[in-house]
Amino acid sequence: MSSGNGGVGGAGRNPVALTELATLMADFAADREWDQFHSPRNLLLALVGEVGELSEIFQWKGEVPRGLADWNEADKEHLGEELSDVLLYLVRLADVCDVDLGDAALRKLQKNAVKYPVHVCKGPSKKYNDDEEDVSTVARNNVDDV
Amino acid sequence: MSSGNGGVGGAGRNPVALTELATLMADFAADREWDQFHSPRNLLLALVGEVGELSEIFQWKGEVPRGLADWNEADKEHLGEELSDVLLYLVRLADVCDVDLGDAALRKLQKNAVKYPVHVCKGPSKKYNDDEEDVSTVARNNVDDV
Amino acid sequence: MSSGNGGVGGAGRNPVALTELATLMADFAADREWDQFHSPRNLLLALVGEVGELSEIFQWKGEVPRGLADWNEADKEHLGEELSDVLLYLVRLADVCDVDLGDAALRKLQKNAVKYPVHVCKGPSKKYNDDEEDVSTVARNNVDDV
Amino acid sequence: MSSGNGGVGGAGRNPVALTELATLMADFAADREWDQFHSPRNLLLALVGEVGELSEIFQWKGEVPRGLADWNEADKEHLGEELSDVLLYLVRLADVCDVDLGDAALRKLQKNAVKYPVHVCKGPSKKYNDDEEDVSTVARNNVDDV
Repeated sequence: MSSGNGGVGGAGRNPVALTELATLMADFAADREWDQFHSPRNLLLALVGEVGELSEIFQWKGEVPRGLADWNEADKEHLGEELSDVLLYLVRLADVCDVDLGDAALRKLQKNAVKYPVHVCKGPSKKYNDDEEDVSTVARNNVDDV
Repeated sequence: MSSGNGGVGGAGRNPVALTELATLMADFAADREWDQFHSPRNLLLALVGEVGELSEIFQWKGEVPRGLADWNEADKEHLGEELSDVLLYLVRLADVCDVDLGDAALRKLQKNAVKYPVHVCKGPSKKYNDDEEDVSTVARNNVDDV
Repeated sequence: MSSGNGGVGGAGRNPVALTELATLMADFAADREWDQFHSPRNLLLALVGEVGELSEIFQWKGEVPRGLADWNEADKEHLGEELSDVLLYLVRLADVCDVDLGDAALRKLQKNAVKYPVHVCKGPSKKYNDDEEDVSTVARNNVDDV
Repeated sequence: MSSGNGGVGGAGRNPVALTELATLMADFAADREWDQFHSPRNLLLALVGEVGELSEIFQWKGEVPRGLADWNEADKEHLGEELSDVLLYLVRLADVCDVDLGDAALRKLQKNAVKYPVHVCKGPSKKYNDDEEDVSTVARNNVDDV
């Protein structure tokens, strides 16, 4: 299913819904009476902790090619777990903040499409520090949300 | 649909699939010829940047109650956008690393259920620094992944 | 020396210079031939990893009073170590980027003093979401760098 | 003073003491009556926000060589400011937690020297994923705190 180079989108992958994860997380917490610990800022700091663990995987590696062709299975499994930990806390944080995360993400993508129009942003690769600034460089330099 | 207190799970929310977001992000990048910028470590640092913006929303507020009852609409909208930015980069990072994020998240939840069994973890609330340590306190103190 | 409530500044503490730490870190890396791993982005990700470990200390605690009066010695020692890890990577990152960190910090403090003048920012506490916005509220709402 | 390649330590740089920064930050907050906002978790989240801004500087650049030879002055100035923001919040966080940060950092360096002995860790560069694991590889693979 994969090109072996990553970045192919969701084709061939498990179409898990954000709402399913939110429900599983809510049930997980309720079963253990952990709702008392799941305040917004507690969950946010837990998320930051997991982002730290995700970063540790990449910290001494230098640049890593897409697709991770030379990683062994154990390392890829570990990566999947840390990505999941970030996702699960993010889903839970959105939930306890009463944010419909899937809906918000779709709206953010639409907003980004307006902010970075294809005809402006597409084009030959520009270096970030080009002295000559043209529209596509400016657009790309200001990209917060790709 | 919401209890007004958050943490209710995905009921009544948009059941957006992670695969849908992955495909939208892949198309977004391809349309703008931005794949060249979407290396794993670039995306990871972009994710860290968005986690920073998410943290800024909460930084001066002190403790924030679940449900965010006293937040105005503009602030909740802003929060939804920052949560989305983190999510979108996370989905994209997983994609370029050839990780099936939805699948990985479901497996991680199962692993957590084994690690934190309900009969061990459930029980009356314990403070974290109780001198007397019992099983439920130990379990809760070591919780990395709730 | 301490008020027991924290936030008293550097009185009575070890006046370690940033330059001393930078030199110790440079020697540490050179002795182990680790300079090869100390690229800017490697160090930045290592810093993010340590910020994650720092966050884990605070993640399930809810609000924590200044001075940490009720923390035991082991927990305070652990906190000191994680704060140090962040500091040491930060100092090292600045060094490999040829940034004079102490000098930059003093200049940033001066810049902040101009940005947030005492006569504008001082005053009775305002809630962040007050409908009525006055100067001091505006100033405080926009505080990135205190 | 600089080799142009970074990582030379503190020689020729401003020997600013951590205690001086702690005192300046304490005075800055007191002058503006901002101590009320400087709780440990507020400052921690502010720190995370600044780490995010620091990451944004590096996020689309791919690997960056030490010394930043090809960066312009404005970009280096910006980098110095973001590094400073992280430092200042870190110093302030340690202060309100009653941690002697300079002292803790020196002790952590000593601990690291014991954990990663020169005779074990020094040697020809090893790839992280070498099938053959020897002592130096193991040591390097487990490096949290370099």
